Amino acid sequence: MTKKLHDKLTLVIGGAASGKSAFAERLVTDMARPRIYVATAQAYDDEMSAKIADHQVARGPDWHTVEAPQDLALALSEVPPDSCVLIDCLTMWLSNRLLAGADLAADQAELIAALTACRAPVVAVTNETGLGIVPDNALARQFRNAQGALNQAVAAKADHVVLITAGLPLVLK
Amino acid sequence: MTKKLHDKLTLVIGGAASGKSAFAERLVTDMARPRIYVATAQAYDDEMSAKIADHQVARGPDWHTVEAPQDLALALSEVPPDSCVLIDCLTMWLSNRLLAGADLAADQAELIAALTACRAPVVAVTNETGLGIVPDNALARQFRNAQGALNQAVAAKADHVVLITAGLPLVLK
Amino acid sequence: MTKKLHDKLTLVIGGAASGKSAFAERLVTDMARPRIYVATAQAYDDEMSAKIADHQVARGPDWHTVEAPQDLALALSEVPPDSCVLIDCLTMWLSNRLLAGADLAADQAELIAALTACRAPVVAVTNETGLGIVPDNALARQFRNAQGALNQAVAAKADHVVLITAGLPLVLK
Repeated sequence: MTKKLHDKLTLVIGGAASGKSAFAERLVTDMARPRIYVATAQAYDDEMSAKIADHQVARGPDWHTVEAPQDLALALSEVPPDSCVLIDCLTMWLSNRLLAGADLAADQAELIAALTACRAPVVAVTNETGLGIVPDNALARQFRNAQGALNQAVAAKADHVVLITAGLPLVLK
Repeated sequence: MTKKLHDKLTLVIGGAASGKSAFAERLVTDMARPRIYVATAQAYDDEMSAKIADHQVARGPDWHTVEAPQDLALALSEVPPDSCVLIDCLTMWLSNRLLAGADLAADQAELIAALTACRAPVVAVTNETGLGIVPDNALARQFRNAQGALNQAVAAKADHVVLITAGLPLVLK
Repeated sequence: MTKKLHDKLTLVIGGAASGKSAFAERLVTDMARPRIYVATAQAYDDEMSAKIADHQVARGPDWHTVEAPQDLALALSEVPPDSCVLIDCLTMWLSNRLLAGADLAADQAELIAALTACRAPVVAVTNETGLGIVPDNALARQFRNAQGALNQAVAAKADHVVLITAGLPLVLK
């Protein structure tokens, strides 16, 4: 099924450790174009450093990595049109923007504009975070509301949306 | 696809900020009947007041609103048969009933009876809350067990059940 | 649809109180073979004891119960080939192994080998736990990562994978 998903914008959504990044990497690899990996994670602790390193090993060497923990729209504006882009992931980027005190609605609008303007095909990975109990703290509630709004906005824009559960895809769009 | 979902009872299930209310409102609007909005939220703090106000603006003026934070069965018994009803949402109602110390199993049975008796078509919105880590506190665990049981009971009764992810519907029934 | 799922290994995945155990029990019951219930729960408190007792009543008497809170691979090696097996559930087992300080990657490999070697059909129940907000504590994050990895590994091995939401099945594989 990955062969059919080579359109302009694909959103891969799933839970933590659901296999969504591996699925998204296969989508990009199948496109047989120069691969740009847009990394949004910031290695602010050992747990995150280890996770980033694990993902890099799993991905292999045939990727050009661009670090974009904050200015994702700028990174998208600079990718070559003949490449294909993996954004991994929107959740990390949103988390970084929230902690930086950014205007999340303005960020979302800017990202949608950048995705629209980008001439290379893009596969964006994101987390669904709204299917647990209401979090105790207000910041976590703000985050999951912003994450839900962002997921809806990107999904509305996307040509394809795929939900990953236990490594298995379900095409939502 | 919304055209096919005009039956007696439709359950719209999804996560926080998944677009489930907007989808449910479109279902009701498409029915072209007088619209009853059964609001179960209680504005007990500023965050909730703001959320209720946002939803009202998004919904527009063509709705008759009935407040039913506790006695949802009574509210359903009073809707005109030629109307159509949006319950938004079962999760808020269940939360209110839990905090009021109600017998949740009796409540669930009463709600199912009221949904069965209601002669107007009903679209009910609910949250899936069981897909995160087990909550630390016993009340949250009790809530998600009651929410799961309620969702199963209403889904078993429903003509249609639609799961919403990032604004996109997946018909489960 | 349960009639089609009588293959070697079926994974039933869902949230808390989603109806996944009841669905899995129906799958096994439909196979019309001697039924082995592999129970992984440990009744370490009253809440868990009550839940175990409720499930036993719902299941009825026609089951041979094997307790396997820790050595699930051993339990699988001992089931008669003409029986059918319900493992309820992998999440409890993983939780027990984590609390026992086990090597979870080695455990996972051993379980996959035991599922492969088992000559009776197996229905395994598991939780999806990665769709909420990132948990505050490191142990919970470690658990949901291990749960995600285990779900992916068993799903990759399984003939069928079914996602349960509000009691309703969605076949992922």
